[in-house]
Amino acid sequence: MPELSKKGHSMPASPIRKLVPYATTAKSKGIHVYHLNIGQPDIKTPEVVMKGLQSLDMKVIAYSPSDGNSSYKQGLVEYYKDNNIHISTEDILVTTGGSEALFFTMASCFNPGDELIVPEPFYANYNGFAKITGLEIVAVESSIENNYALPPMVDFENKITNKTKGILICNPANPTGYLYSKEEILTLSKIVKKHNLFLIVDEVYREFVYDDEQHFSCMELEGLDDNIIMIDSVSKRYSMCGARIGAIVTRNKELIQTALKFAQARLSPPTFGQIAGELALQTPPSYFDEVISDYIERRNTLVNGLNKIPGVLCPKPKGAFYCMVRLPIDDAEKFCQWILESFSHDNKTVMMAPGQGFYSPGTQIKNEVRIAYVLEKEDLEDAVRILEIALNEYPGKSL
Amino acid sequence: MPELSKKGHSMPASPIRKLVPYATTAKSKGIHVYHLNIGQPDIKTPEVVMKGLQSLDMKVIAYSPSDGNSSYKQGLVEYYKDNNIHISTEDILVTTGGSEALFFTMASCFNPGDELIVPEPFYANYNGFAKITGLEIVAVESSIENNYALPPMVDFENKITNKTKGILICNPANPTGYLYSKEEILTLSKIVKKHNLFLIVDEVYREFVYDDEQHFSCMELEGLDDNIIMIDSVSKRYSMCGARIGAIVTRNKELIQTALKFAQARLSPPTFGQIAGELALQTPPSYFDEVISDYIERRNTLVNGLNKIPGVLCPKPKGAFYCMVRLPIDDAEKFCQWILESFSHDNKTVMMAPGQGFYSPGTQIKNEVRIAYVLEKEDLEDAVRILEIALNEYPGKSL
Repeated sequence: MPELSKKGHSMPASPIRKLVPYATTAKSKGIHVYHLNIGQPDIKTPEVVMKGLQSLDMKVIAYSPSDGNSSYKQGLVEYYKDNNIHISTEDILVTTGGSEALFFTMASCFNPGDELIVPEPFYANYNGFAKITGLEIVAVESSIENNYALPPMVDFENKITNKTKGILICNPANPTGYLYSKEEILTLSKIVKKHNLFLIVDEVYREFVYDDEQHFSCMELEGLDDNIIMIDSVSKRYSMCGARIGAIVTRNKELIQTALKFAQARLSPPTFGQIAGELALQTPPSYFDEVISDYIERRNTLVNGLNKIPGVLCPKPKGAFYCMVRLPIDDAEKFCQWILESFSHDNKTVMMAPGQGFYSPGTQIKNEVRIAYVLEKEDLEDAVRILEIALNEYPGKSL
Repeated sequence: MPELSKKGHSMPASPIRKLVPYATTAKSKGIHVYHLNIGQPDIKTPEVVMKGLQSLDMKVIAYSPSDGNSSYKQGLVEYYKDNNIHISTEDILVTTGGSEALFFTMASCFNPGDELIVPEPFYANYNGFAKITGLEIVAVESSIENNYALPPMVDFENKITNKTKGILICNPANPTGYLYSKEEILTLSKIVKKHNLFLIVDEVYREFVYDDEQHFSCMELEGLDDNIIMIDSVSKRYSMCGARIGAIVTRNKELIQTALKFAQARLSPPTFGQIAGELALQTPPSYFDEVISDYIERRNTLVNGLNKIPGVLCPKPKGAFYCMVRLPIDDAEKFCQWILESFSHDNKTVMMAPGQGFYSPGTQIKNEVRIAYVLEKEDLEDAVRILEIALNEYPGKSL
């Protein structure tokens, strides 16, 4: 057969899905698996979406414009305005999920070999999209001891070379749940201005902010219109990951025009997803109040439970619904496989994502896992209990 | 501002959408524009899809597996079997439209600089996806005088270098409507085997075959399992372009595994689109009978009408719903703009796609346009009448 591509060979496999075969085997043995590995919330999609879709009366499911339906973009402008983000429809390109927004942004901004600085740990698929577009991710360490706060500016400065073209953060962050403060965003903006870099901020978890904290969007920064790009998505906001609707938001007109060329090549974002996205704009505030209070309760259950286990460290996240957890183990990859393959308690076990996939290829992290708190409180309590028993039984302890 | 990427600068703009501003202006002056430029059929989506969606009872619009819902893949296996294509679910990767299937295939098979031979004219976005993945499209001329039949094998052989890694055709073809015969596919397969190339066949118009001709799929070829890749999509088949559901179909397991890594990076194809695709598998044969007879009538109306205009040449297509048309003009780009900007008859005009966008950048074609016959017969008749008057009035005639 003909050789496949080098990119194909070197694309990272998903750290979240790698262990799926072991989970499948466990389930086939009748073991209940708590899925703490994925960001698929169990939260219901708002009723206004499901009802609206049921009463759709279309004759042809046609292409939408490549940059998205204008009625949806109009609605987004209002939504953003309510979030203190003042933009116009021309600043929005509707994409097939936040994933495509990331891909188009990277393809539009970076040449192969260009460097993008990202605090690590970071969302695993940044590695994949960097591989596709040929850019280099240069990691800056954010530390678990410091709750994954923004690393000191000197650490960024130390990484800047003549190839550096941007900085990427996720706020609030997957996988750490860290919420960057307004001061941190302002600090970042200074370095971006000084070195004329792109600042890409993945804000898909904007709504998921706890403990009366405020989210400060990169689009609220002033005087850096050409440098700032916000990545957005409806997936988590309205618990409709399958709609596959996201957006690039930037006041940089040339960037929007460039990304539009990539968008035209793939014709159009999904039509149903955009309709769902537009319907979701009618979601009542009470929906979010309920969701947020659920997540706060889940987070507290999980994080307090985890930190009671000897040798476990889990900083308390201020946003999103993930946390990075340090475990007293030799190798998280082995442990996450072992707990699915060779362990169960009361016929139950736990699936987690090994931490390594959330770091750049150059960083070796052996004792961290990512946990998503997307299950009911009672299930989380039980999952923590089972994890503690597993840690006691695991032969590769590092305590 | 920071510089945008070279790829972004050199991405071709869509030849179909470039003239949209002129059409918008014409419409704002009260001129009716017949849209012969785009492949958005006016045919209704099957009722079984729309009704099924209305009675959907989901609570969460969740991610699907990265390779697609297994129930949908199961259904596709049956659909393909009915089309004499015998494969299993492992041979299918569900994608976000045929567009993504093309992108993943190119990214999985080709390194930057690798060469892909394509008979021209070809689907315009092949240029865009080639640009994204960095491969070079090497065009082989298929001629309008020969009805765009497969060029002689010697023409392919002449283009093969040590960088050649594949051949891509569309069958039946956009933009020519040409239907490759079984013999032509067999001929192609020999050269593919001899030089160990990938053969990529875009078969998204499989159902649109006229005059009792038979479609012969590349998946019916024997003994070349690792070389052959079929691109598919539900967009045209069920007139649901906005669903954004396509597929890579290949018996090359390593290729599927590689494409899956790209698929995992973007998480999942659209959930609603897949549900629509699965529902569409229940479409009764009578739906296609009606659609096909509509298209035959439209094609005959259009092609016969066009060929009656002095100086116009339009080969009669055997499939899809496009044709390439040679016009007695100096410059199709100018003409297509002029007819929107400076012409109207009975307050009506016609929008067409200039032919150049359907050729490789190295080929200069001045006197061709692509026309899609996606309008009612009466509208097509009127559009042809108006085109004839426009050709008479156009100052850049070449007769």
